[in-house]
Amino acid sequence: MKFSSQMKLEQRLAPILELLRRQHLVESLVDRSDDQAGLGAGVVHRRHQHELARALARLHPADIAHLAEMLPPEERSQVWASVQEKMGGAVLAEVNDMVAEGLVAETPPDRLLSMGRTLDPEDLALIEDLLPDSIRSRLLSDLQEGDRSWLETTVTYPEDTVGHLMTGDALVIDSGATIEDVLRFVRTLGDLPDHTDKIFVVDERRHLVGALPLKALIIHSPKRRVSDVMKTGLVAFTPDEDAEDAGLAFQRYDLISAPVVDSRDRLLGRLTVDLVMDFLQEQAEEDAYLREGLSGDTDLFGPVYAGARSRWMWLALNLMTAFVASRVIGVFEGSIQQLVALATLMPIVASIGGNTGNQTVALVVRGLALDQINSGNLNYLALKELGIALINGLLWGSLMGVIASLIYSDSQLGLVMATSTMLNLLVAAGAGIAVPIIMERLGRDPALGSSVVLTFVTDSMGFLIFLGLATMLLIH
Amino acid sequence: MKFSSQMKLEQRLAPILELLRRQHLVESLVDRSDDQAGLGAGVVHRRHQHELARALARLHPADIAHLAEMLPPEERSQVWASVQEKMGGAVLAEVNDMVAEGLVAETPPDRLLSMGRTLDPEDLALIEDLLPDSIRSRLLSDLQEGDRSWLETTVTYPEDTVGHLMTGDALVIDSGATIEDVLRFVRTLGDLPDHTDKIFVVDERRHLVGALPLKALIIHSPKRRVSDVMKTGLVAFTPDEDAEDAGLAFQRYDLISAPVVDSRDRLLGRLTVDLVMDFLQEQAEEDAYLREGLSGDTDLFGPVYAGARSRWMWLALNLMTAFVASRVIGVFEGSIQQLVALATLMPIVASIGGNTGNQTVALVVRGLALDQINSGNLNYLALKELGIALINGLLWGSLMGVIASLIYSDSQLGLVMATSTMLNLLVAAGAGIAVPIIMERLGRDPALGSSVVLTFVTDSMGFLIFLGLATMLLIH
Repeated sequence: MKFSSQMKLEQRLAPILELLRRQHLVESLVDRSDDQAGLGAGVVHRRHQHELARALARLHPADIAHLAEMLPPEERSQVWASVQEKMGGAVLAEVNDMVAEGLVAETPPDRLLSMGRTLDPEDLALIEDLLPDSIRSRLLSDLQEGDRSWLETTVTYPEDTVGHLMTGDALVIDSGATIEDVLRFVRTLGDLPDHTDKIFVVDERRHLVGALPLKALIIHSPKRRVSDVMKTGLVAFTPDEDAEDAGLAFQRYDLISAPVVDSRDRLLGRLTVDLVMDFLQEQAEEDAYLREGLSGDTDLFGPVYAGARSRWMWLALNLMTAFVASRVIGVFEGSIQQLVALATLMPIVASIGGNTGNQTVALVVRGLALDQINSGNLNYLALKELGIALINGLLWGSLMGVIASLIYSDSQLGLVMATSTMLNLLVAAGAGIAVPIIMERLGRDPALGSSVVLTFVTDSMGFLIFLGLATMLLIH
Repeated sequence: MKFSSQMKLEQRLAPILELLRRQHLVESLVDRSDDQAGLGAGVVHRRHQHELARALARLHPADIAHLAEMLPPEERSQVWASVQEKMGGAVLAEVNDMVAEGLVAETPPDRLLSMGRTLDPEDLALIEDLLPDSIRSRLLSDLQEGDRSWLETTVTYPEDTVGHLMTGDALVIDSGATIEDVLRFVRTLGDLPDHTDKIFVVDERRHLVGALPLKALIIHSPKRRVSDVMKTGLVAFTPDEDAEDAGLAFQRYDLISAPVVDSRDRLLGRLTVDLVMDFLQEQAEEDAYLREGLSGDTDLFGPVYAGARSRWMWLALNLMTAFVASRVIGVFEGSIQQLVALATLMPIVASIGGNTGNQTVALVVRGLALDQINSGNLNYLALKELGIALINGLLWGSLMGVIASLIYSDSQLGLVMATSTMLNLLVAAGAGIAVPIIMERLGRDPALGSSVVLTFVTDSMGFLIFLGLATMLLIH
């Protein structure tokens, strides 16, 4: 038999990439040749197209999604046109939102509808907000009453809550049943939803009272009552909880599935490890992007103009902050005219502050995401970072002071250099903690642009401290 | 019944934090009072200690680990001393490596040995490299022969490989068995290892031939042969594969457990979603840290001096690069003396390059981690980023040029500003792609310090382009 391992994904994608490359070659040849060659090229093109469709049909939808994410727009469209309708829906549910939007936009309505019809309510919930209204409503009306009302409920919860992430495919049994009843129930189903490691046990009013691990069905005698062998004390979630917190709980308690209940412990749905894991990964990525102000640009191979526009807001903010920092220098133009070495040395003070502050930002953003920082330990953290800044400022600031005084044979300049390096490291540590904490207190994502704001503070303050001290001590 | 939800973790930790706060208060009072008060404080202290131990005993080891990670050193030691021996091992296996090292260092050898003895081989493998040699070897000799040889094998694989992450607790049955045989086997076990969603099926020479999902035991008739109902075409891994790639495959194919086989398909062990998920999260964190040059400082509340020292290497590198960038300015001191506005404007050019380049770095580092970038699409990605830089450089560069020429009433200076902003954005895009790609080609982690290196390039080139152009066009 054959095993398919991750290492072999590249090998499985290789023939497809090769096909796309050959196709690209044929097309570039046709551009500069006569009609007859065009005809021949058409034949080759159709053969390639056919081969492509066959190769894609052998892949898992998640592999096609991975392929789509790593292709430039033209090749991506070509692959997407060759994907079978019955797999297309699953591919859309797997690719990231930016890429999915692009694919949806270039799919004919009929094809999109057929693709949507292959999806179960859970997967449909993942992409329904990307679909045109007409298709969305037709797909919803195709659903069974129970599925539709479940889907309409779950999508009303905000994107980053448990309610949005939960699925409706939980298996439920009555606490009065016996193991034998459950076995019969499962056998009539014929198959179990993925990631079913337990069956939820409810009382007559659908209040959750426990869960029966799948293995209990095997280990215990069919005669035993569910309520005698079920596990109680489950980790449960409510739909308005933060999905990231739920993800951390999955990680902490090594869960595969967990119940979602309302405030009166009535079972609403369940969370499964696959969706939770995807969510956590997306969040970690998003944090890394947000710190650099990269909110809407997660399609690595998307079109150029959309990429350019998605960065305008941050460029504008960045230019504004850089401009303000530069006005600080403007104030001291007189001093610089007298002692031009100041212009040479000032970026060092600013740069060391920016880099150090960004380290603190990275630590604090992560600590907030992991719920490790609270009002009780914030003081310790601030003192620790300031302590580190003081030690390193004294040590490395002195070194820079010595170097500066040697280069310009001016020990006073060296003293200014050393002092302002140390002070700007303290500013960097303070701002590195304050910026993400303030963002969080304001109810914003603490990562959001914190790197840009931090650099603004360390630049402006670096220039102000260095040029200010120099003006006081050196300029007469 | 009571459900414990993630939201309530804070509430469950709150009484412990309160106890620690009160304890801290008592101690600070004792410092400045007489012997009698000291005696009274001792009584209070013992009562607190007792309460603390009782509260901790009610927590999950993963919760205690979370608590330890969010406490400053003194409180952390106090909690650690109150943790029961039978839970200590599990706590050590859960906390991050930096914190675990600290805890191990302050634990008496006898206690450490008792804690280690409560661990199964899988958890022991997670912490064995942190233990003193004498304790490590005594714990190993306590293990059964099979467990010991498994553990000794798995720890020889490098940290970031499948072999290091795999566990030895896979359930295995012979392909000749019937469902009834398997049911009997499972019932004699009495319990199944966590995350057992399937039982692996091997032939007589222990070659993996398929897997039997747990639900197959329930659904199929006991008479049927395992080889008739098992699943083939499994996603399998080899021990030398990259653990991050395996993690991505778990995510892609929504796996709960997967077999690890040697080159001849013999079953060596298995991977489970909990360990894989932890590994992926650690990697995402590490990437975010590494970009800022924060390799060895993952203990947010660790001691100050260790934190300071862990950042020296990057501070030194940062000072060196900032110094080199400043020497570029030094070359143009004559021009600055003639036109001091240059000193004011030059940090804008450098800063905009740094911020934009770091956006590209964040995208490329992530794309490399997700295996989305290869030699086939690298060109497109580079052209895309350069295209974005060109569009934004023309647009925002012109704006900066206009502003600069208005402030200094010098249209030539505005032209220099506009041109050099655009050129430095192109440099930033190029370097933002090149720096992580070169790191990767050199076999290093592409995230490692890429932010520091990128800022160096955009600073130096920004100063060089702006001051160079200005000297050619404006200085006579």
